[in-house]
Amino acid sequence: MIEQFQQVLASVQSVDMSLTKEVQAHLDDLTKPKGSLGRLEEIVMKYALARGTARPELKKKKVFCFAADHGVAVEGVSAFPAEVTPQMVYNMLDGGAAINVLARHAGADLGVIDMGVNHDFPDHPALRQCKVRHGSANIAEGPAMTIDETLQAVMTGVGLAREAHAQGYDILATGEMGIANTTPATALYASLLNLPAAMIAGRGTGIDDAVLQHKIAVIRRSLEVNRDNLSTPLEQLASLGGFEIAGICGLVLGAASLNMPVVVDGFISSAGAVAAMKLSCRVSDYIFFSHLSNEQGHKTIMNRLGARPILDLDLRLGEGTGAALAIQMIEAAVKIYREMATFSSAGISGKTE
Amino acid sequence: MIEQFQQVLASVQSVDMSLTKEVQAHLDDLTKPKGSLGRLEEIVMKYALARGTARPELKKKKVFCFAADHGVAVEGVSAFPAEVTPQMVYNMLDGGAAINVLARHAGADLGVIDMGVNHDFPDHPALRQCKVRHGSANIAEGPAMTIDETLQAVMTGVGLAREAHAQGYDILATGEMGIANTTPATALYASLLNLPAAMIAGRGTGIDDAVLQHKIAVIRRSLEVNRDNLSTPLEQLASLGGFEIAGICGLVLGAASLNMPVVVDGFISSAGAVAAMKLSCRVSDYIFFSHLSNEQGHKTIMNRLGARPILDLDLRLGEGTGAALAIQMIEAAVKIYREMATFSSAGISGKTE
Repeated sequence: MIEQFQQVLASVQSVDMSLTKEVQAHLDDLTKPKGSLGRLEEIVMKYALARGTARPELKKKKVFCFAADHGVAVEGVSAFPAEVTPQMVYNMLDGGAAINVLARHAGADLGVIDMGVNHDFPDHPALRQCKVRHGSANIAEGPAMTIDETLQAVMTGVGLAREAHAQGYDILATGEMGIANTTPATALYASLLNLPAAMIAGRGTGIDDAVLQHKIAVIRRSLEVNRDNLSTPLEQLASLGGFEIAGICGLVLGAASLNMPVVVDGFISSAGAVAAMKLSCRVSDYIFFSHLSNEQGHKTIMNRLGARPILDLDLRLGEGTGAALAIQMIEAAVKIYREMATFSSAGISGKTE
Repeated sequence: MIEQFQQVLASVQSVDMSLTKEVQAHLDDLTKPKGSLGRLEEIVMKYALARGTARPELKKKKVFCFAADHGVAVEGVSAFPAEVTPQMVYNMLDGGAAINVLARHAGADLGVIDMGVNHDFPDHPALRQCKVRHGSANIAEGPAMTIDETLQAVMTGVGLAREAHAQGYDILATGEMGIANTTPATALYASLLNLPAAMIAGRGTGIDDAVLQHKIAVIRRSLEVNRDNLSTPLEQLASLGGFEIAGICGLVLGAASLNMPVVVDGFISSAGAVAAMKLSCRVSDYIFFSHLSNEQGHKTIMNRLGARPILDLDLRLGEGTGAALAIQMIEAAVKIYREMATFSSAGISGKTE
């Protein structure tokens, strides 16, 4: 498994910056003042470079929602009980969750992936059964996952990206569901980015001050008990992450290795993406951060990465909801690039000298 | 005309706040942590109140792009020559402008309105001929429009809102095209909001430092020469505005009078909306500001109004481009409200006590 994983890392290529000139020239020939579509222009530039073509298309879109349970939930770090993870998976399979509504609105397909939910689901056409284990171990007592389990979860994400690529998808997006997963995500950020837990720990689905202080203590304990197993990004992911976070990391790596842009949802998804960025510095060329999460700490993390998410709507739900919304902005940017008239074709006067 | 205008102002009603409780109760019963969809939840609350129902729909959408020329263009305040106004109108009629692409992306119809372009257009199915005059007068030398012309332009906007309402549209949006129109818009803001010209004047379609200083001087001169005709919002609009700005003001007033939410595009459209807000303090309940413009000054103005636009994408194009993008976010919010499962229906556990 480790060889396959290393092959994926090695196959992520830097984008071909020589395309920049051609893309910029076309953007500047569109019937608008230069640069006047601001970040839409930056988005289409990034998209074109990631796709490796000056005439990119964006038609087929897919959101992957990775679900898993977390042993650390027993520490009482979440406002909701752990049984909500499978309940929400069923809700997604029934089409009633927020991500169902927003993926449909974006014209994106939705795949729900059981990476490690503590429940056995019957077969369902909308569910992919990729369970590694019935929930990760409690990070406050030791590693969340073994290295082998972590590689299995990462390679599951890679495999999903490859399958989507073969099916002709142009862009992928991440999402997740997992009660208590802001705790491992925060611990993982603290370790990957060397940030104090208290600076980035937040209220998740809605915990009060006392539980927040407890959550910070649990994160510190997790960093302490796992301190001998945090020397590489893979070890950090295994010790402090979770199955859905590892799946997201894999989807990001797989997408990047295939020149597919990937839209990374909020606080939890970004943790999987940051793990991927630490594993391969080149993946950032393929990542769009969809939105600034309302979860305390996400802004600090985005600033640390030098990233400016597309939307800022105080979202803190996850599931891929922000990613589905951001896909519409990316698609708008690509349509601008492909469908607008040019100054020459439309016979419009340029700037006054 | 003045009586009809005053009837419109009088017919703008405060929203029925008693609906708040029912809307909030439904939002809180959706299968997500309370408040976790952040501004989407605020948006649907505002939308429901504006529509006057706890079960609002959002199906038919229309963007109105108002075009006009400005006498002040002779002062050399724009980077583009005035002939670009009719050229861009033709581009819109041919479907090649940014607003064509983005309205289509949003599933919105587009109406192009000649409010006062200095050109005679042949009939075209996508063009509404509502020309008041072939361009406003130079505000640096006197009033842009007479009071009668202003009322005619405003009532044109009101009439378009009424027609759209009769056609079953659920939401309207504003946009504009008019070379040099950041100059009257800035002068109008300076007067309506009592802000210094130098604080809010920006580079429009891309002027350099020297032209920007000249533009500020022209705005100051406009405020000076019109100082005796700035005692009411209607006089301020007539003296310092323009035909497309007055049309936007009318569309906003007309929409509000019919319980129709209206999405207000960037710097120029917001000037029309602020004029409407000064004419009737109740219209703000019906206004969504689509985006924070990259035009210097828009942030100051939004802060002054206590408004937080939906998007922040460094746009500075106008035409209704930001409004078309924001419509998709508003539609997403309404779909969340209408289509998500509830905790009770989905059998999902609530928060732990």
